[in-house]
Amino acid sequence: MTSSSLESPSMNVEAVLHMKEGLGENSYAQNSSHQKKNMDTVKDLVIDSATGVYASLMPERFTMADLGCSSGANALGMVENIIRGIAEVCRTSSTSQLPPEFSVLLNDLPTNDFNTIFCTFPDFISKIKADNPTVFLSGVPGSFYGRLFPTGSLHFVCSFNSLHWLSQVPPGLYDEANLPVNKGKMFISSSSPRAVPAAYLRQFQRDFGLFLKSRSAEMVEGGRMVMSMQSRETEVYTDKKTTLLWELLSESLASLVSQGLVEQAKVDTYNVPFYPPCIRDIEDEVRKEGSFRLDCARKYDCNTSTGGDAKEAARVVSMAVRAVQESMLNYHFGPDIMDMLFHKYAELITESMEKEDIKSVQLAVVLIKL
Amino acid sequence: MTSSSLESPSMNVEAVLHMKEGLGENSYAQNSSHQKKNMDTVKDLVIDSATGVYASLMPERFTMADLGCSSGANALGMVENIIRGIAEVCRTSSTSQLPPEFSVLLNDLPTNDFNTIFCTFPDFISKIKADNPTVFLSGVPGSFYGRLFPTGSLHFVCSFNSLHWLSQVPPGLYDEANLPVNKGKMFISSSSPRAVPAAYLRQFQRDFGLFLKSRSAEMVEGGRMVMSMQSRETEVYTDKKTTLLWELLSESLASLVSQGLVEQAKVDTYNVPFYPPCIRDIEDEVRKEGSFRLDCARKYDCNTSTGGDAKEAARVVSMAVRAVQESMLNYHFGPDIMDMLFHKYAELITESMEKEDIKSVQLAVVLIKL
Repeated sequence: MTSSSLESPSMNVEAVLHMKEGLGENSYAQNSSHQKKNMDTVKDLVIDSATGVYASLMPERFTMADLGCSSGANALGMVENIIRGIAEVCRTSSTSQLPPEFSVLLNDLPTNDFNTIFCTFPDFISKIKADNPTVFLSGVPGSFYGRLFPTGSLHFVCSFNSLHWLSQVPPGLYDEANLPVNKGKMFISSSSPRAVPAAYLRQFQRDFGLFLKSRSAEMVEGGRMVMSMQSRETEVYTDKKTTLLWELLSESLASLVSQGLVEQAKVDTYNVPFYPPCIRDIEDEVRKEGSFRLDCARKYDCNTSTGGDAKEAARVVSMAVRAVQESMLNYHFGPDIMDMLFHKYAELITESMEKEDIKSVQLAVVLIKL
Repeated sequence: MTSSSLESPSMNVEAVLHMKEGLGENSYAQNSSHQKKNMDTVKDLVIDSATGVYASLMPERFTMADLGCSSGANALGMVENIIRGIAEVCRTSSTSQLPPEFSVLLNDLPTNDFNTIFCTFPDFISKIKADNPTVFLSGVPGSFYGRLFPTGSLHFVCSFNSLHWLSQVPPGLYDEANLPVNKGKMFISSSSPRAVPAAYLRQFQRDFGLFLKSRSAEMVEGGRMVMSMQSRETEVYTDKKTTLLWELLSESLASLVSQGLVEQAKVDTYNVPFYPPCIRDIEDEVRKEGSFRLDCARKYDCNTSTGGDAKEAARVVSMAVRAVQESMLNYHFGPDIMDMLFHKYAELITESMEKEDIKSVQLAVVLIKL
């Protein structure tokens, strides 16, 4: 460990954050059943929104983008639902028109494992072709906190399980002497000083504002955007549903510190670029940006416990967090502690689940481009 | 080795062929200086064609595709030239208009290493941004012997060092008893029976016809396409410039057979999905397809010897062929013989270069969409 890595609070999230690549045991592709469940929850909302756009605009080419597609099968599952939904609208319309051409743009950060998704394209296209519509797929690497697509080119945008990731760890988590203020924690916690949630909120506002401005330039009038993300139940920052899994991961690190395997100072300077907005946070930014109308916002309770074996449920959750968090933890702490860390983490999640279910809140929002 | 792999002449080229991935010693990225040289030869032709399309159509968004972009730095080098060329046209025009938005679509087979190119996008975009034009980059995996892009969406298409690859090893290289007819050779050779060049030509006609038909649907009227590929000097099939490097690779395999390291039957059933068209081949297909006008066709002589140290020049050529051929050789012969094979190959190329320069012919063609 170099002292410079202790002093520097800024990790280039765009260059570091990615879901665990490939198809192996620890890969995101094998550990994204939770995200799949979240997507199933909003499936009808997504299909209704997409078919609504199609029915009102009737473009010959329907262009849609999935922002933060990651590298698992989830990426194409929802795309298939949308295409089949629109093809069905065409088939059952009074004039029984032909479906449009579909242009599908899958976006994620440049470090995402696009190779793995791309290898599934040929099978996907032949499967869809059997049912007629012509589909063109492409990958668009880049941060969605900035422009990704040409002006006025998108009819429909969706984003799942992604917008709770910030573009960077918030600045403002260090005091005037450049000492960390969120000691021992990696996210907003009940022990965090007020500066911590304030810094997280500011970063969210900056990022989400830029997100809306970028999409505003890219979408056609009447286009719609469906986003789902982790959220807070209320405006309170320290709700257990949004903080528990981070608290347990901090505790797991503390356990490695007590064994002399990790330095306390390393833990004190690790914070996650994560912010689960409440509905009010979203409403505020949509109003400020001004080019979208909030059509609907729904909260869903998610139960990460499966009701049966706590140990097995905990293993699944721990592996899921690992597939998402490993790239950043690795960058900060090095790869050697990962197995021990997630072993401890699974233990703590098991203990917690044996007491009560671990829940989280998902927020789904539909915006219409004015 | 299983007998079934001997009997089956068909390798799924789309699933197997790819330039050696990554950035390592044997990677295509590190061994594509020859391709770079070929691209430099046609640079002016490409820039003139692209700026010509822009000047005549003046679209607000200029959409261009590079077909067979592979995974090295070559992919973005030409894109940068084109963008700077068009930006210059805008700057120096009498009305000094703003440059268009650029949408750049990089295509290759799904097994291409897109991850490596994608990681270079952020730097490329910041470099270009400094000079003003807005550029959107995306990756489009799929075979260019079929549809890849929405109808009427492309202004400019280019393809370098790719169209000499066929979609498959030609059928028709086996006789009625299903015995290989091109024994000991992997490409058209002076010892090949007539059925061999005929089978290769038929496959080229089918593939290139489908290529033109697909691009015809995708390109706007007045759009242009510049293609460069390996070619034959004349209509003669066995010109040394197009066959020598394959002959030497066959000889290298023969040497492994004589050492008992490879079975003769394996060598007899290996053929490359490669065809270097002469100008007449291209003209015939363009006329048959009917939706393009051949604007220009130029031949260039390439010298793969560098004039200096034959051994070093041979090493460079051998590594370049390896980066391109390894995926297919591996699939057919297994990975164990690769190092020995290319060691022998470099020796044979050195001997040949010590006698005379090894030359090849490149063909550049410009088509205009009617």
